[in-house]
Amino acid sequence: MSAMTMPAPGQITAMPAASDFACSTATLAHVSKLAVPKGFAFSATHCGLKKSKLDLALLISETPAVAAAVFTTNRVQAAPVLLCRGHLRKSRGKVRAIIVNSGNANCCTGPHGIAASRATAAALARALRCPAEEILVCSTGVIGAPLRVEKILEAIPALTLARGAEPGAFEQVARAIMTTDTRPKWTSATCRIGGKQVRVLGCAKGSGMIHPNMATMLSYILTDAAISPALLTRALREVTGPTFNSITVDGDSSTNDTLAILANGQSGARKITSRGGDYNRFVSALRNACESLALAIVEDGEGAQRVIEIEVRGARSDRAADQIARTIANSSLVKTAFAGADPNWGRILAAAGRSGINFDFERVDIWLAGIPVCRRGREHPFDERTAHEKMLAKHVPVTVDLRSGKGHARIWTCDFTQEYVHINASYRT
Amino acid sequence: MSAMTMPAPGQITAMPAASDFACSTATLAHVSKLAVPKGFAFSATHCGLKKSKLDLALLISETPAVAAAVFTTNRVQAAPVLLCRGHLRKSRGKVRAIIVNSGNANCCTGPHGIAASRATAAALARALRCPAEEILVCSTGVIGAPLRVEKILEAIPALTLARGAEPGAFEQVARAIMTTDTRPKWTSATCRIGGKQVRVLGCAKGSGMIHPNMATMLSYILTDAAISPALLTRALREVTGPTFNSITVDGDSSTNDTLAILANGQSGARKITSRGGDYNRFVSALRNACESLALAIVEDGEGAQRVIEIEVRGARSDRAADQIARTIANSSLVKTAFAGADPNWGRILAAAGRSGINFDFERVDIWLAGIPVCRRGREHPFDERTAHEKMLAKHVPVTVDLRSGKGHARIWTCDFTQEYVHINASYRT
Repeated sequence: MSAMTMPAPGQITAMPAASDFACSTATLAHVSKLAVPKGFAFSATHCGLKKSKLDLALLISETPAVAAAVFTTNRVQAAPVLLCRGHLRKSRGKVRAIIVNSGNANCCTGPHGIAASRATAAALARALRCPAEEILVCSTGVIGAPLRVEKILEAIPALTLARGAEPGAFEQVARAIMTTDTRPKWTSATCRIGGKQVRVLGCAKGSGMIHPNMATMLSYILTDAAISPALLTRALREVTGPTFNSITVDGDSSTNDTLAILANGQSGARKITSRGGDYNRFVSALRNACESLALAIVEDGEGAQRVIEIEVRGARSDRAADQIARTIANSSLVKTAFAGADPNWGRILAAAGRSGINFDFERVDIWLAGIPVCRRGREHPFDERTAHEKMLAKHVPVTVDLRSGKGHARIWTCDFTQEYVHINASYRT
Repeated sequence: MSAMTMPAPGQITAMPAASDFACSTATLAHVSKLAVPKGFAFSATHCGLKKSKLDLALLISETPAVAAAVFTTNRVQAAPVLLCRGHLRKSRGKVRAIIVNSGNANCCTGPHGIAASRATAAALARALRCPAEEILVCSTGVIGAPLRVEKILEAIPALTLARGAEPGAFEQVARAIMTTDTRPKWTSATCRIGGKQVRVLGCAKGSGMIHPNMATMLSYILTDAAISPALLTRALREVTGPTFNSITVDGDSSTNDTLAILANGQSGARKITSRGGDYNRFVSALRNACESLALAIVEDGEGAQRVIEIEVRGARSDRAADQIARTIANSSLVKTAFAGADPNWGRILAAAGRSGINFDFERVDIWLAGIPVCRRGREHPFDERTAHEKMLAKHVPVTVDLRSGKGHARIWTCDFTQEYVHINASYRT
């Protein structure tokens, strides 16, 4: 059973690296302790898309940064996603700034939606005196409602002027991108490259419609590392699989999922131009930051009381293990049992059974919160009360061993509570 | 938009046949009006698996009947499912009786579980003086707990003696197979073959863990038609697709799903030995009975307030339409929006977008409760209040037209309420 160290609310912890590369992963008790990379600035405001909360955020690299991004695989893609893809292509991955609104996803909004994202990029490019294709535009919120882009355009000049490089400014950004999130999510990590400190700073939003596939809801990672565009893209793809793509809240993939990273090289550390020690140290810090943010999203899953870490091992392949783990992680019956801290392991095995993967259920062992509850496909005597009490924890590990191979996967999900239904039955009202 | 006539609670109506074959589909206001086929008898009792409710049911054909059955496709299959498969093979589809317990699924119970099902079949075979392989055994309830089979064995002699052929006895059977169901589900239909009346009578249980695949939870259909084993099997498979396999409550397929039909030929009508008019009339009555029971299961879905009929059309193939309809039908976000009668069509389109089927979302039209809400992938102006009020109905149709082909599918689901979570967070306690 792998132990899971989880960030406490408001105290997001970068995970200890799986590798043994030197990589600082300080526990960030307070936003003031965030390691802000050099050459970035932040700003946030209330422009009027939401009633009163912050709803517009800006992340700026003072010099053009190398960028990489992954986006939703949903066939329905929001206007800003289409714009970002086009801009990254045109600018060959050079980015100056990211502007993000919450309160409206600008998705299924037709030609007006595209025009709105373009107008936003153009206005910000004018304010920053850079080409429009060096701007990324993101939106999150309700799907299908027209975006009142004039609110954003009016706010851009003041938003740009008000930017600051201090952790407090970044905190405002993390707050401004929230929708049903109950708390902002941020993290930072550092590593040393050639004697120089390199910083990785990230924030994310996401609480429902979480089932990322090659991307998460919205997450932005900033680093002052110097790295080639190809290696930055490689690093991002490498860390996305075991972090953002290994979480699920409700099995619904968003239309707006975007994970973007900007690397501006302002740390002064030597440039990472090949795979090797420097690259590995950077990837390790990046993975820590992404894992920390991904877990923070699950922990803040709509209505969630606890995080469930589902480990499947002994499958015929990693892919088979992954498919079984995801089916368990998305089973409404499994997730509601966890809401009641009910050690109903039969539902876990039944979900595995309908995953589409062939296995012999009479070889399967299951542990719930560290307690063996099923051996060779049938009940292993255990104390119900002890199991129930252990399942009341904030973080509950589940291990399913198929005893049929070496395939392994790990997925994080949360429990499914009445509060999830309450939040989503009247999201728009 | 296809209108959906739904059975009112306790008044399950056989649906009007899609075909125009003569087929009586009387509305059954009361169990006393059920058309019980000749030569069958029923019995139910409380044997002690549940605290006080009926938990053991028996359906007998007084003469050996031709039988066909479909079972769960879950890799994890309960002992009684394995036993039924073996018995049908050995007896070449000849069955005298079905015995069903609720309160325990006898699944993941190892060799003891198999022995328990065998002992049940043997005891009933002794009481009925027939070979054990002419007995089907079914179980439903919690997975993984050992079955106290001695309770069943002790009850069998009295259960067998107490059998009766009246509708009230059948009602007791429909009640005894219930688990989280809030009401029993039965239906009957008739058709005329060669001037003689043939009767089809059915009951079903199922409320959660409903996502049948080649079968439903538990459903038994009895008919006094005379039909060859091959054609009975064919008829059952033909009607299962558009009925039991087109419903979902929570996307979780059970380990115990069984749908069995017995045909004893006691109507005196000529035997159906080839496809043609007689076969079609029989299939039509059978389909009506199965559709009625399938809809009754969705309507009684755990915590459900309303049935949602999802029709996808204009897809490139029926298979593509089916995959999209099922993804929408299982989306937690779509189902919770229906719980709040929120016309959040963006979630429907977003669910379609993650279905794995390629389509152009800017061609899609969506109707909610008959109101056009999305045209060409973006909002079509509609009155929110009117839509909300129409969505408060017991049965809400949704149509998604991809405008890209002739593929069509229809799936029934129910809304996802706080009550579902409440029921399933503490199912075992």
